[in-house]
Amino acid sequence: MPHEHKILRVAFQGETGAFSEEAAVHLLGEKIETVPRPTFEALFSSIAGGLADYVLAPIENTLAGSVHRSYDLLLESNLYVVRETISPIIHNLIALPGANFEQIASVESHPVALAQCESFFRAHPQIRRVASLDTAGSVRDVISAGDPSRAAIAGKRAAEIYGGKILREHLEDHCENWTRFLLLSAAAEISEHADKLSLVLHLDHKPGALKRALDVFAARGINLLKIESRPIPGHPWEYRFYLDLQTSLNDAQTQQAFEELRSSARELRVLGCYPSHKTQAAEKARLQS
Amino acid sequence: MPHEHKILRVAFQGETGAFSEEAAVHLLGEKIETVPRPTFEALFSSIAGGLADYVLAPIENTLAGSVHRSYDLLLESNLYVVRETISPIIHNLIALPGANFEQIASVESHPVALAQCESFFRAHPQIRRVASLDTAGSVRDVISAGDPSRAAIAGKRAAEIYGGKILREHLEDHCENWTRFLLLSAAAEISEHADKLSLVLHLDHKPGALKRALDVFAARGINLLKIESRPIPGHPWEYRFYLDLQTSLNDAQTQQAFEELRSSARELRVLGCYPSHKTQAAEKARLQS
Repeated sequence: MPHEHKILRVAFQGETGAFSEEAAVHLLGEKIETVPRPTFEALFSSIAGGLADYVLAPIENTLAGSVHRSYDLLLESNLYVVRETISPIIHNLIALPGANFEQIASVESHPVALAQCESFFRAHPQIRRVASLDTAGSVRDVISAGDPSRAAIAGKRAAEIYGGKILREHLEDHCENWTRFLLLSAAAEISEHADKLSLVLHLDHKPGALKRALDVFAARGINLLKIESRPIPGHPWEYRFYLDLQTSLNDAQTQQAFEELRSSARELRVLGCYPSHKTQAAEKARLQS
Repeated sequence: MPHEHKILRVAFQGETGAFSEEAAVHLLGEKIETVPRPTFEALFSSIAGGLADYVLAPIENTLAGSVHRSYDLLLESNLYVVRETISPIIHNLIALPGANFEQIASVESHPVALAQCESFFRAHPQIRRVASLDTAGSVRDVISAGDPSRAAIAGKRAAEIYGGKILREHLEDHCENWTRFLLLSAAAEISEHADKLSLVLHLDHKPGALKRALDVFAARGINLLKIESRPIPGHPWEYRFYLDLQTSLNDAQTQQAFEELRSSARELRVLGCYPSHKTQAAEKARLQS
């Protein structure tokens, strides 16, 4: 992040108070300007539209898995991955400051958040679930409505921002609920600590094509951290592969692997080369000590 | 499907009129009893609960990609894949019989359906999007409310069932919008025409493990049709792999491959062996000619 002289504008998907905004502040500190964007499409076009310097996009959750929309739009937007960060997702039941748990008759949130609190709803069958477009936006709506029988499920930041009261914490079914976010930029910045590389491959639609592509990395001792397949619109049952590799663009073996792959793949695009969350945390600790 | 003497009960997720119900009728004919289930959890437990003989679950869409929840619950439920079917997803704008398009002020549907009609909403910025829990359920709500300014996005079957009027057809952004469904049973039935095999692998969390597993099949000329990775709850950043292979359980090479894999994989489970959609269609055509 070289622009220390001006306030960085970081766009995120959702309303003010969203989990993504929490993650942006956690990664870059309180001095940034966070820019809420209503949809993933609006998020990924916010740098080109002059609204933000960076985009923070959720890419994967340890329970829900990959965030498909982010994978697709990362490819379309031509943005580069410059950092990653990992945040815990803690679901809170948030209501009016004067409300009691016993009064709550309905709980609103995004369907994904509602689905992650299945055991809470099973334990309280009298509470009705209401779908909404946004977690933090649900808190805003509940508070502005002034109805003590309504509550929302969202992160702590949303309660703070909209003046809601947290009635229950940790509504999520599983405790190991983490989301990995990518910080995206219009320019490829490669940190000297970069040790993780994300790329996308469009292989020939032939038997064995994926296996041969993985061979190219394995033969050079390059470790595959994650593989994600995504459909190719307009070509039913063909897939693009997104790979995360434990390596850097500066690595000679990696460059050789790319050369070999380029001769056979229809498309090979590097999405970014950046320090892994772990490496970044270690570097931060080193600088602070 | 051997039980010709009684009416088959087939469970699907959603309200009466859902896309999944359309697909069940398309696969098995009008003589089945379709059983609507409110959630994916309720769907996958409907055979064990005595509510249904089969379950039809969406597993992948050509635009949205894999249906994560189905992959996860397929594993948990211990059901077997006995058929697959592929249906087009056509989004319709449905309103009261007396309504006109010009009157429509808000459109409700499941957030995924709303997101697949992005260009429609961009072209009509005066129309408000409203999230709901279900596509067909939105049609029911709009009709029962009797408000001509409300419309819903859903399949044709929902309009027929609830007496709605289709104001616009094909609201979807992309024409190649197909969903692949799996028919699930409590017992493994292997058709003589089976030529597709689905399995799940839990590999050691070691560099190169996936590549070695794919080698086992590739070395025997067994074609990989699809690979899907899913997070393992409680083990952040570790993945299970779901593979679709172009082969049959009766194939000797496949049995050898399984033996080799079982010595190294933590888990290998066959989810089903069934005729591919194409093979099934060809067989149906042969029987009817």
